[in-house]
Amino acid sequence: MRQYEMFELELKGKEPEGSFVDIDLEAVFSCEGECKAVKGFYAGNGIYKVRFLPEKAGTYTWKVTGILDQEGAEHCACADSRQNIHGPVRTADMHFTYADGTPYYPFGTTVYALFHQEDQLTAQTMESLQDTPFNKVRFCVFPKHYDFNHNEPPYFAFEKKEDGGWDVNRPCFAFWERLEKILIQFGKMGVQADLILFHPYDRWGFAKMPQADNLIYLDYLLRRIAAFPNVWWSLANEYDLCEAKTITDWEQIEEFVAEHDPYHHLLSNHNCFKNWDFTRPNVTHASIQSKVLNKVAGWRRLYRKPVVIDECCYEGNIQHIWGSISGREMTYRFWRVVTMGGYCTHGETFLDPEHEILWWSRGGQLKGESPARIAFLKKIVEQLPGPIEPIESRIMQLVNMSAKEKAQFLQQADHFGKAILRMGDEISDFCNSEFVYQGHCGEDAYLTFYDRRTCAEDMLELPKTHCYKVELIDTWEMTRTVLFEKACGKTKLSLPGREGMAVLSLKTD
Amino acid sequence: MRQYEMFELELKGKEPEGSFVDIDLEAVFSCEGECKAVKGFYAGNGIYKVRFLPEKAGTYTWKVTGILDQEGAEHCACADSRQNIHGPVRTADMHFTYADGTPYYPFGTTVYALFHQEDQLTAQTMESLQDTPFNKVRFCVFPKHYDFNHNEPPYFAFEKKEDGGWDVNRPCFAFWERLEKILIQFGKMGVQADLILFHPYDRWGFAKMPQADNLIYLDYLLRRIAAFPNVWWSLANEYDLCEAKTITDWEQIEEFVAEHDPYHHLLSNHNCFKNWDFTRPNVTHASIQSKVLNKVAGWRRLYRKPVVIDECCYEGNIQHIWGSISGREMTYRFWRVVTMGGYCTHGETFLDPEHEILWWSRGGQLKGESPARIAFLKKIVEQLPGPIEPIESRIMQLVNMSAKEKAQFLQQADHFGKAILRMGDEISDFCNSEFVYQGHCGEDAYLTFYDRRTCAEDMLELPKTHCYKVELIDTWEMTRTVLFEKACGKTKLSLPGREGMAVLSLKTD
Repeated sequence: MRQYEMFELELKGKEPEGSFVDIDLEAVFSCEGECKAVKGFYAGNGIYKVRFLPEKAGTYTWKVTGILDQEGAEHCACADSRQNIHGPVRTADMHFTYADGTPYYPFGTTVYALFHQEDQLTAQTMESLQDTPFNKVRFCVFPKHYDFNHNEPPYFAFEKKEDGGWDVNRPCFAFWERLEKILIQFGKMGVQADLILFHPYDRWGFAKMPQADNLIYLDYLLRRIAAFPNVWWSLANEYDLCEAKTITDWEQIEEFVAEHDPYHHLLSNHNCFKNWDFTRPNVTHASIQSKVLNKVAGWRRLYRKPVVIDECCYEGNIQHIWGSISGREMTYRFWRVVTMGGYCTHGETFLDPEHEILWWSRGGQLKGESPARIAFLKKIVEQLPGPIEPIESRIMQLVNMSAKEKAQFLQQADHFGKAILRMGDEISDFCNSEFVYQGHCGEDAYLTFYDRRTCAEDMLELPKTHCYKVELIDTWEMTRTVLFEKACGKTKLSLPGREGMAVLSLKTD
Repeated sequence: MRQYEMFELELKGKEPEGSFVDIDLEAVFSCEGECKAVKGFYAGNGIYKVRFLPEKAGTYTWKVTGILDQEGAEHCACADSRQNIHGPVRTADMHFTYADGTPYYPFGTTVYALFHQEDQLTAQTMESLQDTPFNKVRFCVFPKHYDFNHNEPPYFAFEKKEDGGWDVNRPCFAFWERLEKILIQFGKMGVQADLILFHPYDRWGFAKMPQADNLIYLDYLLRRIAAFPNVWWSLANEYDLCEAKTITDWEQIEEFVAEHDPYHHLLSNHNCFKNWDFTRPNVTHASIQSKVLNKVAGWRRLYRKPVVIDECCYEGNIQHIWGSISGREMTYRFWRVVTMGGYCTHGETFLDPEHEILWWSRGGQLKGESPARIAFLKKIVEQLPGPIEPIESRIMQLVNMSAKEKAQFLQQADHFGKAILRMGDEISDFCNSEFVYQGHCGEDAYLTFYDRRTCAEDMLELPKTHCYKVELIDTWEMTRTVLFEKACGKTKLSLPGREGMAVLSLKTD
């Protein structure tokens, strides 16, 4: 047993008589007075398994009860951080860290039907991922039926009933073993599996299962894979397009997952039109589809949780509006979100008329120009002294002022400032369209992304009490040029007048 | 006297004893039973003038009454359209035509303090305009105080009182003559003067005059220049930043101008944050500052008047967010607005640290890359068989369906369509961010602007009953390539996968 690595007990028995899912098999793991109860699952061929994720080192005793009985003890070694073993990802205020405290900055990508492909293609996808900055992959448990996604998957999650419907009480073991292979590989690669539990793009009937069947499916899934350190629960891709499920169904799903996951993995629910209610206690972070990226700071204020823009269109050239942004635009979207203290997710949709293999859904090879730029951004973020907090625009600062602050401000405001206060809520369109992407790490670092603005000059307002090294970053050419070795206070910048510039000021004293 | 050209009577008298503005001098012009009363003004040196704009050919009799008396008759010749004399611009549904019915498509630019410069600079500006596509210029009556605008103007609109305040009853004649010189030159160049009557950027006190003085100023202005065929009244630049004026003041100003302009020139009011109420009867068109350009079709629906985006940031490189968009972005903004059936206005703000001469306010020379592209677009628009009407997006079509249409639609809707109808108003962010810019001229022409989308294919849905020539337009490279000589019905397009593409289908049968 090793800290932060899945521990598995294998037990032999008879095949279950009724449901293969709802079996009476539980284990309690105890270490230094702390106990955790986990459920076991049937893995086929008379084999039962109980999986456990030890989150601290020490000596564990365990006891299996139910249809099988067994007990034992196991020493759990400390995690070897040199092997990149840091435990599950947790939230830390509006950011993420691994369980051992190592910062985790999600730079995700999307391969919806990742493991519903032939082995060769899945293997190619996994190999492609090695060379990318991506440390989180969004993918679905169920196969996908949609444009460019017409292939039958090799396996389904369940066996079929005689009437042709899915028998959720009879899991297809090969299917689950295949999924686990991916999770294990991802674990070795340092990739988080942002596992999508439901989605609407379906021709097989998974999207329309009765709610009772949904919960049986989730029961099996959680018994089997909750002990993997690198899984996140994404209740849906586009929950609001799933016409067979009501909001009450989703709430029940959310509660079921939260209650039956002994490790409280990250949990969210992804939208098409309307954000899920991320203030709900079971929800750990906001997983949002949106292209209105200047809202990130507002969403952080609203939800007080990390904000991940898990869909903001894909780099590609298909006819769909969501699949035809340039590599440049994809890169800029990452910069917009990241400088606002959020996190962003990539996807790629380049036409492949012969094979219909588009990265965003089936994987294969990446063709786009953004991954290299996203890697460049990731390196910058990882080198910062801490996670980025947004600097709200002057306008938003005014709008959010207290009455007392407003009264003070009005005494010396120009007519622009006064007008903003007169207008109140009516200026949201204005705020959305005249927006500056800026973030900071306390007084240690300041980062401005100029987006598509072509300024030839700007004025930095750095604290007067520290010295800063100021760098110009070309987010597309991936260059960093020192503008000042030592700057403080108001500092006039000369900028190249091109799109895609950023300026980073790092405290040097 | 010539149709659509200003006719002027000059009369001699004594200097007015009181106000130089509020003088009792009126003329009635009569032609074929139609009479029009116009007011005269004092032009200095004992000279009084009465100006009249004849809108039809024929024989006019006129009679001056008040402090001076005179009468006479004049033959008014038909306008010579070969000399580009077409009369004042009027609205025609949600577009514009000249009074003689010739279509007028505004492609404006902005030179706020155009004639508050030394003569040489103003002359250079006028010369620069000759080589541009711009047929409308927004500029202010009052001088401008703001960044890059610190020069004193050569003249002011009024003389000063002994207490240092402005004596609105004593116009500065040299000032008004200078303004008229511009109007005449614009007339010869085929340029409409979108004259801004008030604005907030002021250090001289014009923005804070009492309302009674505002109306005296307007009285003189209207007596002097309402008879110019090519003036439009823009009540303000950014009315909502003018802290000295209430909404009631603005309404009074609007009514005063409408009532005292015998020719009912085009009239609107330009905002910073919040649109003026363009449904008001005196308002002829919407003059909007906004960067949320996909709203154009919605504003047309709301106001049922032409929509002119009179400010959407400027091509340039200054530090302000509104003055640092690229030539490409300025070009794309024009295309976005125009394909939605609206009209757009240009401006340019390239740093000139030595001379502080930025086109947007002081004029001079144009440096940007967008004017040539705007000229290219203008030529395409002028060659179309009629003005462009927007094609609303599928989503907006759904949102705007009647209850009966919705019921019908639901019977065959996919889950995406059903979700849109379930969501109702909550999808506005989505609509704004997944937007297709498309327009048409009945079944005679269809125009799609792909904006920054990098599609390599798309499906045209042309009527099956006509034949169309289909052209690919590169809006930046300014090239037109025939894709099909004869296309009809569903037509699959191969596109180059670059930003800034448009497709034009023109009926050929």
